Formats: sequence, C-alpha cells, structure tokens
Amino acid sequence: MQFEHVTLGQRVLFGSGQSAAHLAAEVDRMEAARVMVIASEFERPMAEVATNRITPVLWWDEVVMHVPVEVAERARTAAAAHDVDLIVCVGGGSTTGLAKAIALTSRIPVIAVPTTYAGSEATNVWGLTEDRTKTTGVDDRVLPVTVIYDADFTRTLPVGLSVSSGLNALAHCVDSLWAPKADPINHALALEAARALATGLSGIVTDPEDMTPREQTLYGAYLAAVSFASAGSGLHHKICHILGGTFNLPHAQTHATVLPYVLAFNAPGVPELAARLAAALGRPGAEGEDPAQAAVVALNDLRERIDAPTALADHGLEAADIPEATRRVLAVFPPTNPAPATEEDITLLLTAALEGTTPTPRVPSRL
Amino acid sequence: MQFEHVTLGQRVLFGSGQSAAHLAAEVDRMEAARVMVIASEFERPMAEVATNRITPVLWWDEVVMHVPVEVAERARTAAAAHDVDLIVCVGGGSTTGLAKAIALTSRIPVIAVPTTYAGSEATNVWGLTEDRTKTTGVDDRVLPVTVIYDADFTRTLPVGLSVSSGLNALAHCVDSLWAPKADPINHALALEAARALATGLSGIVTDPEDMTPREQTLYGAYLAAVSFASAGSGLHHKICHILGGTFNLPHAQTHATVLPYVLAFNAPGVPELAARLAAALGRPGAEGEDPAQAAVVALNDLRERIDAPTALADHGLEAADIPEATRRVLAVFPPTNPAPATEEDITLLLTAALEGTTPTPRVPSRL
Repeated sequence: MQFEHVTLGQRVLFGSGQSAAHLAAEVDRMEAARVMVIASEFERPMAEVATNRITPVLWWDEVVMHVPVEVAERARTAAAAHDVDLIVCVGGGSTTGLAKAIALTSRIPVIAVPTTYAGSEATNVWGLTEDRTKTTGVDDRVLPVTVIYDADFTRTLPVGLSVSSGLNALAHCVDSLWAPKADPINHALALEAARALATGLSGIVTDPEDMTPREQTLYGAYLAAVSFASAGSGLHHKICHILGGTFNLPHAQTHATVLPYVLAFNAPGVPELAARLAAALGRPGAEGEDPAQAAVVALNDLRERIDAPTALADHGLEAADIPEATRRVLAVFPPTNPAPATEEDITLLLTAALEGTTPTPRVPSRL
Repeated sequence: MQFEHVTLGQRVLFGSGQSAAHLAAEVDRMEAARVMVIASEFERPMAEVATNRITPVLWWDEVVMHVPVEVAERARTAAAAHDVDLIVCVGGGSTTGLAKAIALTSRIPVIAVPTTYAGSEATNVWGLTEDRTKTTGVDDRVLPVTVIYDADFTRTLPVGLSVSSGLNALAHCVDSLWAPKADPINHALALEAARALATGLSGIVTDPEDMTPREQTLYGAYLAAVSFASAGSGLHHKICHILGGTFNLPHAQTHATVLPYVLAFNAPGVPELAARLAAALGRPGAEGEDPAQAAVVALNDLRERIDAPTALADHGLEAADIPEATRRVLAVFPPTNPAPATEEDITLLLTAALEGTTPTPRVPSRL
C-alpha cells in the first residue's frame, strides 16, 4: 500500500429548507459584513431564499458558461469597488466557477450553495476561458470555505435532468476508482458516493416528490466530487472530454451514456473494486460470480430502472466520427488505466456506446 | 438528512520503508530549515531512520504520558531558543501530544510520523495535564500538516499489543457510528476503517511477518481516528473513560474488551448501520438475518480469530466496582445514543464485560 492523499479542509452544512439559517450562521461565524451574492437570473429566486436572513451589499447576475475572462474581470472589479469580504454563490457549476475566479485573484472567501449535482463546490480547481481556450488550474484559495446543501433547490430539476446529471456525478466516482491518483481513501469515498447516488436516483424516478432520494443524490454528488478531485481524471473523463470538445456532444448525456462501456472495459482489471462497486450499486455478486460481471450488470440494472440515455447516436455522434475519436482517445489514454487498449478496443467501446449495445465485460482471456 | 461535517485538511504520505524519503520531500516542500525532532528514548531508533535525510537542529526525548504542563513548557522553551520552524514527532500518542502542545502556543507546524495505532495525528485535539488533572481542547493549529505512515515502524509491535491496540482503533470507528456528531460521511469513513482493521488484524495474527496486514491496520487506524475526531465520543468511550479514570484499568485492553458489549447494546437501535458494519467486518448478514445479530456475531468471530482480551476481571475490575461504575456511566450517558439505558441495562452490560460472557444483542422487544 503506497499513496499520497491530500484532504481538502471544508465545512459542509446539509439540510433541506435550512439554507437561509445555515448561511446566516456562517456569515456570523466568519464575521463577514460585506457579502456579494452571485446567481444568474434563473438562479435568482433560489438565491433570494438562501440569503433572506442576511443583507448583501452586491448582487451579481452575469454568469456565463466556462467563465470568460472578461466576465471574471468585471465581477472582480465590482467586488473590489464594493469592498466585498465574502462571496456567496447560489447555483450550478458556472456560478460556482465565477466565484472561484474572483477568489483566485482576491483571496476573498467563498460560501457555495449548489443547486445541481455538478460538484465544483468540493474542488480546488478553477477554470477561465479566453479566446475560446479554457485554462484550468488548481489553487487552494478557490476552494469554498463552506458548502451549504439544501435539497429544496433541486426540487424543480425535472426527472430526466436529475437522471443525466446524477449519472454524470456517478461517472465522477466510478472513474475515480482507477484514476491516476486513486488511493484507498478515494475508493471508500467513491463507493459511498455510488451507494448514495444509486439509491437516490432510483428513488427520484419512483417518486419525484419525495425529498429523501433528492437528499441522497445531492449528498452522493458531493462525495463523488470529493473523490474525483482527489483521484484525478480517468479513462472515462478522457473519452468524454474528446467527445464534448471535438464533436460537441452534450456534457451530462455523454457522461451518462459512456460510463457503462468504460466500466465494462476496466472492471475485469480491478476485480476487488468491481465487487465493492456492485455491492454499492445494490447488487452484491452471487457466490462464484465474476465480480466484473456483477458490477456491469449492477450498473446496467440501475440505468434501466432510471431510464438512462443509452446511445450516443441520439446525441449527435455518427459512425464516421469513430476513427478520429479513437485516434484522439489513444493519444491521451491514461498510462495508469487498469488495462491497456488497442485501436480495436477503443473502436469497439465507442461503437457500442454509439449504438447503445448492452455493455458486457470483456472476456478475461483478452486481458 | 441533516448534518454539519467539518473535514480537516491534511496531507497523508503512506509507504513502508519510505518515511525518510517522504520526510525529506515534505521538509523541502515546506521550506523548513530548523527542524525539532521529538521522540522518546524508546522511539529514538525509529526517529533516526525517519530523519536520516534531513539535519535537525534539536532532538527532544523528554516524552511523558498525558503531557504534563511542565514538560510542555520545557519543550516550548527549547523550540523557541533554537528558532525551530518545523516539529517532527516520531512515536505514539504521547509523542504526538507533546508536539501538539508546542504547536498550540507557538503555531509551529507539525509533521507526525506515528508508530502506533493511537490516531492522535489525525485530530485537532490537544491535551495537557496539570496537578493530576487533564485538560483537553480543540484547536486547528495543533493538527499535523502532514502525516507520514511507515508500517515498518509497527514491525516490532508484538502480536498481542497489535491486537489490543488495533481493537482500540476499531473502537474509535465503531463508536463513531452512533456518536453525537455522527453523520453519513463519518459513517462511510468508519466502515472503511472497520473493513481495513478487520482484514489487517486477522492477517497480523496469521502471519506477523507479512507487511500487508500491518499496512492495512495502520491505514484503518488512521481512518478510524478521522471518523472519531469528527463524530465525537459515544457510549463506548464514556464507559471506558470511567473504567480507566476511576478504576485505573489499562487503556487498550479495556477498549478491546468493552467494545462488543456496547455493540450488542446499540446495534438493535441502528439496524442499517449494523448491517453495513457486519459486511465491513467480513460477514454480510444472510437473507432474513437480524442485522444486529449479524454485526455482533461478526465482531465476536473477529475477536475469536485474533484472540482478543475477553473479560475485564482479567484487567483489574471487580464485581464490587459495578454499582459505582454503573452510576457514573448513567451520569454521562449520551442523550444521542440510539437507545436509552436503565440502571439494569448498564449493570448487565458491565457485568457481562467483567465476566467475558459471549456478547448477544438485546431482544428487539426491549427496545
């Protein structure tokens, strides 16, 4: 056993309907007097609920995907002009991203109130886009000091979006099982995340009005982000990055569709983790069953239960794209992946994902 | 789901035989020039191994159990006189405790190199003893910045001591399942700790020369301390604190003996956690089996495999002590415990622990 694990220090306050009370208590605890609230126009009603016990000095609603530098600059100037001593961001990944961009240059602390399963609030990763090029970096000063989770804010998320966004979170934790900096602590957090996400997503589909599964999903998405931030990006995220960047496929749906094929490819190389993943997904393998098989079937079953997207063909990929996608995947194929891959392996994987063939583990003899 | 969870930021470097390389890299990374090494005379040989790639300016070997204030004062004065900018402590809980006492007043950062399963290195708790009274407190500045684990240093720990010390660590994680600040994140970390400790301790007994189980035990003891630090002290630790403080029973053996009786008492009140604990201890309950029963049998089986201490009578407790012990336990009984307790309940629990009766869960009708 050999690893380096960095645990990021953070406070999490979790409770449905309690965001306003939690935020007021945190503002007091941090002795903040001049709060800037970041929320897009769409997120504004939720931000008003969360901030109804504090008096912000500045509201900011210019939130743009991938955080363009000029937007960040305007927000930084406004924060400085208003002598802001605390940033509160209420919203999804882009909103959290803007708060991080301000924190990066100003060191102003951030409290995040996430309304989606994106998970940016649990990481020290920032991103900025200039001239259509996105730059990302790692800096502890962008990590939100406190995260306030209120599942009430996910109530309006339609079931279909909950499923694809939740499967995107599941991809964070499953991919972190074999990511470059994976270690036993990441594994434990990732498997707990998988357990919570599987239970939560099944419950949301069964009864969209029930708050308990929405809480489980939000909690699972948080731990998935924690493990992913620590373990780094594995094969799944390399593939989806290429499919999104080169072929402009939609983010959450792409992740939701590709995941089972990467699991089917990698699970035979990590039998012990596959067995634990199967159990976390609610289907402990039977006596004598191949653990890779157990994990793949567990994910297939979950995906069927929650009516997950099944074929990249439905989201814009074409058979003619497979050769280029394969070349690009092989060029960034992680050397730490549990099994190496040939051009044929990746072609088969992508073709299966394109067509939505039922994922099945590779036969062990091919390992 | 409602909780507040504070994650303490810390770096862990884990690797057998790598303490010297890891420490040298950390000293470089922190740009420390004037290192003080704390290690008792007994721990000195291990400290020399760990520090063989750095040049300390000060060695300190006056280490006393429970950190007497006068010892802390002498060490603080020496650290100041030598203009120390980093403390490296190599040893058990008392050694780490002295480093924390210096950090508390000086803010000098600490790197801990633990050689036992005590777990103090993972907490922000300090303790000092003055006039035979121990004062403890919580302060983030005493949390070691980095922990370096090298299972080579546990090689000389005899099997019997490994077992009682490892069961003491197991008590940290099991008790944190129902402790006052228990939350789902603590639960996940505690169950992973239980899994690693059960596997590790079984392996140490089977083959004391095998390094893998010693690594698993050290890793499990770390996560057990993390979950315990976050969840706080539950019924088990209240009982053991009284048995140690009032009746002067030995620490690790007391914890090792009392744990299964507290589990038997509490498991029926937390069936879902009991089922997960049973699985973590390597004995997933059979279809239809009572989960409390599964957890208790799993711990009994583990204890039998590793020849754990079984009766407090062997460690100095007498039947005549039970009434006073019961009164004292009831006075500090945690209001958050899964089930309340009568005088009869605690009397029965302590009597069973005194005599070493096989632990069995209470019948559900008594809940």
